[in-house]
Amino acid sequence: MIYKKSYAAQLISLNPPAREFAEAFAPSNIALCKYWGKKNLDLNIPATPSLSISLADRGTKVQLSIAPRNSLSINSKNITEESPAFKRTFDFLELFMAKNIKLAVQSENSIPTAAGLASSASFFAALTIAIDKLCNWQASLQTLSCLARLGSGSACRSLHHGFVKWLDYDDPFKSYGIPMNVRWEELRIGLLIFDDKEKSMPSRQAMLHTQNTSPLYQAWCNNSRTDFEVVHAAIKKKNFQTLGETAEYNALSLHAVMLSARPSIIYSQPETLKAISKIHALRQNSILVYFTQDAGPNLKLIFLENDLECILEDFPRMEVINPFSRVDNVES
Amino acid sequence: MIYKKSYAAQLISLNPPAREFAEAFAPSNIALCKYWGKKNLDLNIPATPSLSISLADRGTKVQLSIAPRNSLSINSKNITEESPAFKRTFDFLELFMAKNIKLAVQSENSIPTAAGLASSASFFAALTIAIDKLCNWQASLQTLSCLARLGSGSACRSLHHGFVKWLDYDDPFKSYGIPMNVRWEELRIGLLIFDDKEKSMPSRQAMLHTQNTSPLYQAWCNNSRTDFEVVHAAIKKKNFQTLGETAEYNALSLHAVMLSARPSIIYSQPETLKAISKIHALRQNSILVYFTQDAGPNLKLIFLENDLECILEDFPRMEVINPFSRVDNVES
Repeated sequence: MIYKKSYAAQLISLNPPAREFAEAFAPSNIALCKYWGKKNLDLNIPATPSLSISLADRGTKVQLSIAPRNSLSINSKNITEESPAFKRTFDFLELFMAKNIKLAVQSENSIPTAAGLASSASFFAALTIAIDKLCNWQASLQTLSCLARLGSGSACRSLHHGFVKWLDYDDPFKSYGIPMNVRWEELRIGLLIFDDKEKSMPSRQAMLHTQNTSPLYQAWCNNSRTDFEVVHAAIKKKNFQTLGETAEYNALSLHAVMLSARPSIIYSQPETLKAISKIHALRQNSILVYFTQDAGPNLKLIFLENDLECILEDFPRMEVINPFSRVDNVES
Repeated sequence: MIYKKSYAAQLISLNPPAREFAEAFAPSNIALCKYWGKKNLDLNIPATPSLSISLADRGTKVQLSIAPRNSLSINSKNITEESPAFKRTFDFLELFMAKNIKLAVQSENSIPTAAGLASSASFFAALTIAIDKLCNWQASLQTLSCLARLGSGSACRSLHHGFVKWLDYDDPFKSYGIPMNVRWEELRIGLLIFDDKEKSMPSRQAMLHTQNTSPLYQAWCNNSRTDFEVVHAAIKKKNFQTLGETAEYNALSLHAVMLSARPSIIYSQPETLKAISKIHALRQNSILVYFTQDAGPNLKLIFLENDLECILEDFPRMEVINPFSRVDNVES
């Protein structure tokens, strides 16, 4: 906490709130090259570079009000003081607020919570933007990305729409999400949600367990750096097949390294394997559809608008997202 | 082929058959520490040490007769000359036989063929013993193990009952199955067969693909050497929990490294994941049951006789094998 607090103080001036109320939205993001493991546990500095696509209007809206006592609600459900989510939220807020200031935090997700759909990323990103407004910091997105990172590593990528990269610099002041200047109008993300219950193991714990126990972890990191370069170049060239193949491989190799943790972590469920078989069968029929999978059983499909109808035949309940449907910036 | 042939000729004298007919049996074996990858592709010298348990009377019986033309039947089904199994069988037999000698090979499995249940191991082991009888080599089990290895690496472990280790010596004359002098009467193996169809990718091909494409393969090999030492010591001490945990972990890490091949190899099916969940739930209830999985979706459970009834409640269709029910040697 002390490192985090002094780090935060170097980025913004810890003024008292300038307003009674603030509200902000941040999109969820899905990593096409995954963040898994840290070289600095306190400051969430990643072991490898990662790259994500934000999900436009799917994400988290946070409302922040000065209140007589601290409270947190998620999707209109009150969260008790004892719950880890409450502690994590107010530990984060304490980095910026004097202890006598109490806050009511209301959060609404337009995406299932804690099902490997990165809701903690959009939550901490939106919360950080809301604090910026409440305290009138007027900080840059770069600074807000650094601060959001302290709540949840991948939150630093949810400060922007579109493709966002997060490099693995040792310097914590360089560790923020960088938007890529690429619009890919035809790109679609399909959500296949098999299970929206809480994860068997939260991703931050699974990450640490993998890093601490898998004998394959270092080799995975080395490979992931290569995947990052390939994904990055494929996006710049709009080479969809290379992007899809590499993103899918990067996700499978992440699940491989979790399977090689001791004890093993298995997020896939029977439905996950059935869907993977169907995706591979579609590719055999020349439909270029790929998937990625995070710390949960659900899959996120990656495809181009042209193939949407074909894919919907196999996955009629898939939610389809156009990541470039919003042209505005996150803050606006 | 030339290396194999001259290697074989250094081990036995290539006499013509001394009899018209010979018959032999060899047990299937299940690796508790897996063989996956070769440091010599021609001679099947393994990259890592492995350790297996033979399945008593479950295995392959081979009948070999001098005949007017080469033929192969498996479970009374005639195999055509064009099939890979035919080619593989007669390529192997040609190492020992003059071209003018034709053979009829009849093989009967008491275990499903090509479903990750190591039937090629018991087949090549039984075939080698049958050739020894046909040609009256009177070779040692050590020599026969070296020869069987040329047909299928893991066949070298099917020359013995009980626990068998296969070390990763570079010297091909030291590369054979070594029986461990341990009887563990309480040990049971349970077969959970979800699918007895042909594998999606044969194991020899999957092994080569993993070795050639997985960025995690070398790290897997290093870890597997450690697992081997732990499994070996646990068997000597009859420490069941350590044996079970390490064998299960070794199998999961094998499936991890296959998942990290490019493209990924996935042998698990929805039924596999369901069974794994049930096994983990049994362990939560203090029933010490573990599993291992080979190049297929099926699981092999490892447990002690005491827990049999409990486990059968969850897996009523499981086939139970007592690996130490046969006390005799393979040849007798």
